[in-house]
Amino acid sequence: MPAAITAFESSPDRGAGLARDTRVRWAFEEVGQPYDVRLVSFKEMKEPAHLVLHPFGQIPTYEEGNLALFETGSIILHIAENHAGLLPADSNARARAITWMFAALNTVEPPIVEREAASYMERDNPWHKHRLPIMDDRIRTRLSQLSARLGDADWLDGAFSAGDLLMISVLLRLRYSSPMLDEFPNLATYVARGEARPAYQRAFAAQLAVFADRAPN
Amino acid sequence: MPAAITAFESSPDRGAGLARDTRVRWAFEEVGQPYDVRLVSFKEMKEPAHLVLHPFGQIPTYEEGNLALFETGSIILHIAENHAGLLPADSNARARAITWMFAALNTVEPPIVEREAASYMERDNPWHKHRLPIMDDRIRTRLSQLSARLGDADWLDGAFSAGDLLMISVLLRLRYSSPMLDEFPNLATYVARGEARPAYQRAFAAQLAVFADRAPN
Repeated sequence: MPAAITAFESSPDRGAGLARDTRVRWAFEEVGQPYDVRLVSFKEMKEPAHLVLHPFGQIPTYEEGNLALFETGSIILHIAENHAGLLPADSNARARAITWMFAALNTVEPPIVEREAASYMERDNPWHKHRLPIMDDRIRTRLSQLSARLGDADWLDGAFSAGDLLMISVLLRLRYSSPMLDEFPNLATYVARGEARPAYQRAFAAQLAVFADRAPN
Repeated sequence: MPAAITAFESSPDRGAGLARDTRVRWAFEEVGQPYDVRLVSFKEMKEPAHLVLHPFGQIPTYEEGNLALFETGSIILHIAENHAGLLPADSNARARAITWMFAALNTVEPPIVEREAASYMERDNPWHKHRLPIMDDRIRTRLSQLSARLGDADWLDGAFSAGDLLMISVLLRLRYSSPMLDEFPNLATYVARGEARPAYQRAFAAQLAVFADRAPN
């Protein structure tokens, strides 16, 4: 039996591919492994049966035999460690690719998520318009540093890796909330390079199909 | 030659142990490996020689032979993979411990760092006092979920692991900015259990010595 992941029953982004199951789907596609998907509702995500799998009540989760994991980064690392295609064979290059996984999730993503969260939760407050430039500057600092490191390379460190998969997924979030990515042409091209990969295309189509199947007539 | 890490020349927290080099020092101490420390100033952190090691201009970095890494999570995973003491031998338990590493850094830490950042950067703005309860609620949600999962166990999943090391380090940050941790007695005890480990004590003393050596007379 293939591994099974969970995804939103009703996609909050209407199939734009920003939910974190897309990242895991992309990883499966890169390594050529099949996977099953179990859809969960927002209500189900907060119920005990799901909290056993994911103590923070989110998606995706990962189940394979008697192993259950959560956290997108951990799930993708597990897939990458068990199937060729997402981490280099050389041990130093492998450690550097894993470094980029953490950099994507712990250094670049938090200010982007913060801006999104404020835009959902605080947009009606009078301070929101004053805070937007503060939040944008924090994101811009990270993008500028990332842009300087990437330079004119195709990927962050040699061949495409799980580090690129996560970094591109994080940057993709930004495209739907701000035009900031376009200030850094090499990053915009880098994201487009990731989206052009056949594995990404398959993953995107699979998550979109869930939305299309469930969209009201 | 032992691996070398970087740390702040002037500790912004006056030796409270919150700078991220403390986490890496703790990992070295748990696995019984020596390490060298190179101190860098805030100015040096933004200069090209440091940006080669850390594209986002932060500490810690890790150098060992011709391998250079950044990102605390990645450095600790590298140490844990190469020395016994921070990850279980069983492959499923190992994957779960790595899941907790990502959960600490990507799910629990971001709202805590966000509160700290706002308290530094936005405290003089009229909205700050209105946003504090919003930020506190986001942290409280995560603490409540973590508390429910931990229950009366000593550690998050069986024996102490790199997942506990990072989760306790993340929770420790909170102690210096808010009394919220005390609302969850099992989490407060969990943090104290981590701090009581001899390896943590040695790591804390080592980072404090840097501050004491450099404090003005």
